[in-house]
Amino acid sequence: MHDGTRIAILAHEKFPDRAKTAVGLLRYGDHEVVAVLDREIAESDPDARVNDYVSDVQDAPIVGRAADAARFDVLVVGIAPIGGGFDRSWRPDVETAIESGADVWAGLHYFLAEDEGFAAMAEEHGVDIWDVRRPPDDLTVAEGTAGDLDATVVLTVGSDCSTGKMTTTMELFEAARERGWDAGFVPTGQTGAMIAGHGVVVDRVVSDFAAGATEGMVLEAGAENDYVFVEGQGSIVHPAYSAVTCGILHGAMPDAMVLTHEAGREVIHGFESFAIPDPGTLVSLYEDLAGAVHDSSVVGGALNTRGLEPAEASDAVIGYADAIDAPAVDPVRSDADPLLDAVVEAE
Amino acid sequence: MHDGTRIAILAHEKFPDRAKTAVGLLRYGDHEVVAVLDREIAESDPDARVNDYVSDVQDAPIVGRAADAARFDVLVVGIAPIGGGFDRSWRPDVETAIESGADVWAGLHYFLAEDEGFAAMAEEHGVDIWDVRRPPDDLTVAEGTAGDLDATVVLTVGSDCSTGKMTTTMELFEAARERGWDAGFVPTGQTGAMIAGHGVVVDRVVSDFAAGATEGMVLEAGAENDYVFVEGQGSIVHPAYSAVTCGILHGAMPDAMVLTHEAGREVIHGFESFAIPDPGTLVSLYEDLAGAVHDSSVVGGALNTRGLEPAEASDAVIGYADAIDAPAVDPVRSDADPLLDAVVEAE
Repeated sequence: MHDGTRIAILAHEKFPDRAKTAVGLLRYGDHEVVAVLDREIAESDPDARVNDYVSDVQDAPIVGRAADAARFDVLVVGIAPIGGGFDRSWRPDVETAIESGADVWAGLHYFLAEDEGFAAMAEEHGVDIWDVRRPPDDLTVAEGTAGDLDATVVLTVGSDCSTGKMTTTMELFEAARERGWDAGFVPTGQTGAMIAGHGVVVDRVVSDFAAGATEGMVLEAGAENDYVFVEGQGSIVHPAYSAVTCGILHGAMPDAMVLTHEAGREVIHGFESFAIPDPGTLVSLYEDLAGAVHDSSVVGGALNTRGLEPAEASDAVIGYADAIDAPAVDPVRSDADPLLDAVVEAE
Repeated sequence: MHDGTRIAILAHEKFPDRAKTAVGLLRYGDHEVVAVLDREIAESDPDARVNDYVSDVQDAPIVGRAADAARFDVLVVGIAPIGGGFDRSWRPDVETAIESGADVWAGLHYFLAEDEGFAAMAEEHGVDIWDVRRPPDDLTVAEGTAGDLDATVVLTVGSDCSTGKMTTTMELFEAARERGWDAGFVPTGQTGAMIAGHGVVVDRVVSDFAAGATEGMVLEAGAENDYVFVEGQGSIVHPAYSAVTCGILHGAMPDAMVLTHEAGREVIHGFESFAIPDPGTLVSLYEDLAGAVHDSSVVGGALNTRGLEPAEASDAVIGYADAIDAPAVDPVRSDADPLLDAVVEAE
């Protein structure tokens, strides 16, 4: 069911494995994807389609440039090179999009709206450039009020970065909507924000405002819904990113947490001298830290078992549930329903 | 012993109780303070001096405007109104300073270097404007390396904001220097940065870089010293500011922590619906969270007993030491030596 917005997703030379935002939009977005731009794939196979590379997501042709795509309303820059810069070779695609009257959404450190060429073109053609990582100007410190919401707030937390927090949050949100619940989704990263069509990328916010930015989004979603699913970031045990995690944890004041982990990962990705604590210790850390401002418990676990055979995956999920002493699933392999049951049971 | 820099400190209508930076510089700075500017005090008492209001700090005349001060090298804007704006009525003082060839240091949210009038004057007169709260442009994420330092890193942590972390850090640093230790001081807030003459105000840093900014300063101080005293910020149980606290905790990777608290405070200041956990719980929270990346223990406590009678203060300190199961002092009433002993013992 599409929301009427047609998007093309730029993912040159990175689709699908290094194009997390592109795959996220294909899997969870309400927007209709009319094309994925990957010139490497398109060159080797002019008839390539998304479902040749990723199943279980909406299908779309893979084309080499924006000019070859069907008409779209938004061009999404769905990849980011290390450092977050803008690759000059993408310029013609962005220009084609703007000239055709399409908006541009980008999640780069380099803000396209501050690029003089793009800014002038956007003004001329009356289109908007949304630099998703650019914090709004009206952020402020938290007031400590998210815990007063009537809504049940569920936060995904993790043992590390890239353990499946965004995916788990979306699976929970979709399963809740399928049950007919009034449910809201609070994005805190760029992929989530592009899926939602709004949101603040918390890791780009001044650290004093990390909790406040989260709180503001949670209050907004909580005013309109009975359940609010908040995308977590990083990990409270991450040597570089724990500040972001902590700001989200205390800004959101979740009633329930779902602990995500990737099966077999034992050390922090990219920081291999740092061991990931065992799951039970992580549960205690999150509950104690969250509980300092608002009572919260880890009601379930989401284990990412990609790369495991089905039987191994099943065993891993059972072992993980045992370790955290709560229900666990791989929400991609199976579904998030047992986690929703656990949320309800904890209320 | 002064470092040769003569400073005047602007603190209009707020000296001394609402001028934390001014008092900090008077108490701990190596700079010679030639005047404090407080027009309210100067008007009612033209002969007023700092020591009429605060003892145990360097003395200086209190004057009504910069033009009445003896010659100085730096004008420090030592107060910040709520919101951090620049009060128009301070403009003549800043202009007088720049015209006299003095640099300007300010800790406001409003950056004086971006004020067109001040910027032009500063260029004309060849003076520097240092907006202490403006993060440097070269910050990045942490690499997780502070724990590898040979130096012993000591971080002050707290039960809340304004419990005496900066004061305790300075008392530890001074006591260490008096013992002849090679000791460094890492500021993380504006007062500390002005005392040190350098530093990054971590609460103004993009949250992704909070740990990295701290790490960079700790590595620099640790390369040159055997002991590094890191000023903490906020509290891990603060509903608004815990992200900053957590970034500093994991960026600094302290070997030892000193837990600061204000006697009698039971709830978070300004967030009165949030109870401060008991001291023993706080010790566990800090040790568990720090320990996730680097083994660390709370080796001592610093209790702020201002407002208590001496006998009450003494009892309070004894009770606090008991509650945290470690030596404790009020480092302002007595001294920080027992805490240094505790640091050594824990090595």
